[in-house]
Amino acid sequence: MVTPIAEELAKSQKSISVAEFFEKNRQILGFDSAPRSLITTVKEAVDNSLDACEESGILPDILLHVERAGKDNVVTIVEDNGPGIVKEQIPKVFAKLLYGSRFHALKQSRGQQGIGISASVLYAQLTSGHPAKIISKIDPGKPAHNYELMINTSTNEPEILKDAIVDWDRPHGTRIEMEMEASYVKGRRQSIYEYLKATAIVNPHARIKLVEPDGNEVIFERATDKIPIPANEVLPHPQGIELGTLMKMLRYTERQKLSPFLRYSFSRIGHLTAEEICKASGLDPELDPHELNRDQARKLLDSFSKVKIMAPPTDCLSPIGEDLIYKGLEKEFRVDFISTTTRSPSVFSGNPFVVEVGIAYGGELQKDDRIDIMRFANRVPLLYQQGGCVTTHAIESIKWKQYGLNQPGGGIPTGPAVILVHVASTNVPFTSESKDAIAEIPEIKDEIELAVKEVARKLSRFLSKQDSLKKRREKEVIIKKVLPKMAHKLSLTLNREVPDINPVVAKVMGNLLVDRMIESNGNGDARASIAIRVKNYSSKKWEFNIHDMLPFKVEGAVPQPRVISMGNDYDHVWKISVSPGSSKVIRYSVATLDENEISRLPSLIVEGLDEELVTGAKAIKG
Amino acid sequence: MVTPIAEELAKSQKSISVAEFFEKNRQILGFDSAPRSLITTVKEAVDNSLDACEESGILPDILLHVERAGKDNVVTIVEDNGPGIVKEQIPKVFAKLLYGSRFHALKQSRGQQGIGISASVLYAQLTSGHPAKIISKIDPGKPAHNYELMINTSTNEPEILKDAIVDWDRPHGTRIEMEMEASYVKGRRQSIYEYLKATAIVNPHARIKLVEPDGNEVIFERATDKIPIPANEVLPHPQGIELGTLMKMLRYTERQKLSPFLRYSFSRIGHLTAEEICKASGLDPELDPHELNRDQARKLLDSFSKVKIMAPPTDCLSPIGEDLIYKGLEKEFRVDFISTTTRSPSVFSGNPFVVEVGIAYGGELQKDDRIDIMRFANRVPLLYQQGGCVTTHAIESIKWKQYGLNQPGGGIPTGPAVILVHVASTNVPFTSESKDAIAEIPEIKDEIELAVKEVARKLSRFLSKQDSLKKRREKEVIIKKVLPKMAHKLSLTLNREVPDINPVVAKVMGNLLVDRMIESNGNGDARASIAIRVKNYSSKKWEFNIHDMLPFKVEGAVPQPRVISMGNDYDHVWKISVSPGSSKVIRYSVATLDENEISRLPSLIVEGLDEELVTGAKAIKG
Repeated sequence: MVTPIAEELAKSQKSISVAEFFEKNRQILGFDSAPRSLITTVKEAVDNSLDACEESGILPDILLHVERAGKDNVVTIVEDNGPGIVKEQIPKVFAKLLYGSRFHALKQSRGQQGIGISASVLYAQLTSGHPAKIISKIDPGKPAHNYELMINTSTNEPEILKDAIVDWDRPHGTRIEMEMEASYVKGRRQSIYEYLKATAIVNPHARIKLVEPDGNEVIFERATDKIPIPANEVLPHPQGIELGTLMKMLRYTERQKLSPFLRYSFSRIGHLTAEEICKASGLDPELDPHELNRDQARKLLDSFSKVKIMAPPTDCLSPIGEDLIYKGLEKEFRVDFISTTTRSPSVFSGNPFVVEVGIAYGGELQKDDRIDIMRFANRVPLLYQQGGCVTTHAIESIKWKQYGLNQPGGGIPTGPAVILVHVASTNVPFTSESKDAIAEIPEIKDEIELAVKEVARKLSRFLSKQDSLKKRREKEVIIKKVLPKMAHKLSLTLNREVPDINPVVAKVMGNLLVDRMIESNGNGDARASIAIRVKNYSSKKWEFNIHDMLPFKVEGAVPQPRVISMGNDYDHVWKISVSPGSSKVIRYSVATLDENEISRLPSLIVEGLDEELVTGAKAIKG
Repeated sequence: MVTPIAEELAKSQKSISVAEFFEKNRQILGFDSAPRSLITTVKEAVDNSLDACEESGILPDILLHVERAGKDNVVTIVEDNGPGIVKEQIPKVFAKLLYGSRFHALKQSRGQQGIGISASVLYAQLTSGHPAKIISKIDPGKPAHNYELMINTSTNEPEILKDAIVDWDRPHGTRIEMEMEASYVKGRRQSIYEYLKATAIVNPHARIKLVEPDGNEVIFERATDKIPIPANEVLPHPQGIELGTLMKMLRYTERQKLSPFLRYSFSRIGHLTAEEICKASGLDPELDPHELNRDQARKLLDSFSKVKIMAPPTDCLSPIGEDLIYKGLEKEFRVDFISTTTRSPSVFSGNPFVVEVGIAYGGELQKDDRIDIMRFANRVPLLYQQGGCVTTHAIESIKWKQYGLNQPGGGIPTGPAVILVHVASTNVPFTSESKDAIAEIPEIKDEIELAVKEVARKLSRFLSKQDSLKKRREKEVIIKKVLPKMAHKLSLTLNREVPDINPVVAKVMGNLLVDRMIESNGNGDARASIAIRVKNYSSKKWEFNIHDMLPFKVEGAVPQPRVISMGNDYDHVWKISVSPGSSKVIRYSVATLDENEISRLPSLIVEGLDEELVTGAKAIKG
């Protein structure tokens, strides 16, 4: 009998260590080119420092030093003032893949997998042959430990080349030094500098100092001393949990009865909800959870969607916030318009998440290029794989024409705009371990789309207001310059009297122009002077009220308005009457405003006229 | 003393099993939506079947059966006539991640990582709670084994729920059945049907039968009985190898001396090359490789690039081939033009790879949409993550205007075209374990760009020929219809004689039009009749030679040409002289051609005239 081929083939079957796997597939971890390998390494180290500081209530102070080492190599040093790592765990934290503290914790953090920094150590030893050098100190009264580590790729266990005690002037913190094949690049979007700048925007509590290979020093100073409220660890939410996960939870729970199992294993299940779930699933609350078979587990799972359960807790998330995104965009770009939004938290497969979006438009942004997309996940900037990210796909799937941007050939729209998207979650579903792109999860895509549409609608209103004012001004030119000239010319040609063009003007315009502008903007102590001009282009006398609803009271208004307090806002009301063809002007002063702030002021409201009779303000017939 | 925070944090540090890791991050493996989860599963199972058959010299016969199971679940059954799997290895092959035979083998195969099918088993148990059911048989004389398997995610080891012997009518093969949350979709690009169709294009030796959930049967019949030449396993090539890899090889080699170590560890290093390398690195060929330190390894590595080493062997690759890509595109699309190319093999990080590209244009393809990109890696179609793939980036980075396609807003060009790209390698560098997109490896990007530009240049020539013929015809219309009418009208208006328009015509056209067309195309036994028409629009008599270089001899040519055998081609040469304004026609017959074939015939060459005097053919002054 001939030996079956299967027996031949069987000889080469064997286990693969996870370190071997990633050694062969290092591009999956973000090591596919020299510049990117450095960015990935810095990102992993800085993420760890920020996470550790945040967990420990420390204001992060991070030093990043990059040095050239020979033709193709660089040495990267990242040093922080974090809590440090206890001696016993230093080797595993840095030289064992899939080892860490944040994998099983349901809360927002930068690191999730326990792969990041050890992947850099793996790449460093692969390309330079050098071990990673670690110093860590956990307390001023304890010694600093100095390790030199490599990873045994066949076993995925640390190899300790040096284990010593050293002097270190920091009270506590961690320092890692690695040599690897990589390159430091400047002046492009995908660079260390840009990564740190983007990191600083969304982590204003961190101070980061960069020493570039040429010795140049750049400091990203902290903008606030407030540490973000740390995210809390939560239990999984029943919504969207998988049957297999539930079965595993039932199998390994310490609880002896179903009802307490539910209460202590899930968030948002109290006594009452647990009873309702048991009832809806037809299962006895006294049942031993370890005894449930697959079909009973299925019934339990199905009942989760039959019973009303509160939305997941959101203190496990730490969104950036609309204000901070606004300020970040404002600091970064000189633009005419900014709008931001933070959506309510939502859930996919039991993981709470929140989407935040900002849009900036006009000013110094490039008019003809595709718009810029700035992507963040759990406060970490994403620089690569833009085309493979759900963020990009959500933006591409929007019909941008209706919001006033071009979209030639479909895809990313063009125009002078930047869109910032932040996805924060207890478990950001990346497409790859390199954590560059977020996967095509329908729930996340929908939320991004809704958030982007929300700011896009505001942009569109801004643009159409700009547009209608522009058209209005064009008409004004026609009325003021062209029509009189035509009338004059006609009278000459036909040898008649100059005709009365007023009826024509009324027909062309026929409405009220309202415009709010800064007449003079103060500096220092001086205040800004604001004028509201109304001009009646119709052939009738109009009477109406003008409402200016502001988050503060204006001063020195002429004429004096009636002021009505409305919660945090003040409604300033002027009663106006304007004869055909004439204007009225209202003036008042406010604290100094910049252009962005004035463009953000709410629209004026004209009460008492039809909408089509008013340009430049909202109108209500009243 | 207060306990350092680090000690608090240390308590939650622990190891993560690779199965737990992927359970939490299943989107990384391609399980992020219901339709995609099914496609990923089918892809993994069919890849395994094709690989196993190819390794064993078996013509693949694959049955895929998808059934609905409840509202959200489907059952997938994949059955093949492959070599089967020996009993002892069935549990690990299907229920342990990172286990397989192809990870360490340097040759082109579909599966590489030993993750694919066990990831599907993991996803199935997670979402349905059901084990995977396996039947495998390795020989008609041996029993078929039936297993029911789950993965213990905490340990990444198989859990055997059933182990039995069953009757199975196949002589050998493997069958897997899984229930999972997934959905079967029809009528879109990302579907089982389209995946199988694309698979069939590049695997014409496979027969695949699909039974859809509604009972409908689709058969992708094999187009050839020839099994592709199986790829051979090779040693790594010294070019691009990493220092860390070399150090590992030195450490674990069985050889006792440096020179044999080099010869037996690398491809393309013989006795002479090994000596040269030792000399260039200043190392004694008698040195024990285990004794080399990091600096000596570095010297050895550097010497690899100083010594001339042959390009890597290519029998480890199995490209599809220009012809097959041509036929695949031709079968799939009704178009006006196709061009294909297979590049010479190249290397990245020691891995040989080859890029193949085809472009199809015109016909029934959509004119205004972005062009279609069909991506393949090691003969497997890639359906997702197009935006994150180096293939797409290479196409986007080309300035398409110069090749005759629009590219509004940059990015993917628009127009009636399809581009097929196949990357074959011993180690395709995917961006993620879901194997949907190829990473941004500079060497691969360059090769794709060169290959695409090569076919794009041919397309551009085709288009400019079409264009110049079109312009020529427009001019012809002017000359033949408009100019005489104008002349006639002018003579009437001015009451003069009709002017001689010939000088005008000569000025407008002034050249020779050459056109080759099918006059009648035969069916069955009948032959196609081809005509070459030359028309002299100039005011001079011209004498020249026409060359028609074809891969066959023509028959019944009038007038009779001189035929010169040129390797595989025949150059047919006619000596022609044409008076001003007159035409000459050459006719001959060939075996039936279709439109694609005639458009692929090489251009005619006019020898003896300046290029600017000829339209519709190449010209050499001679």
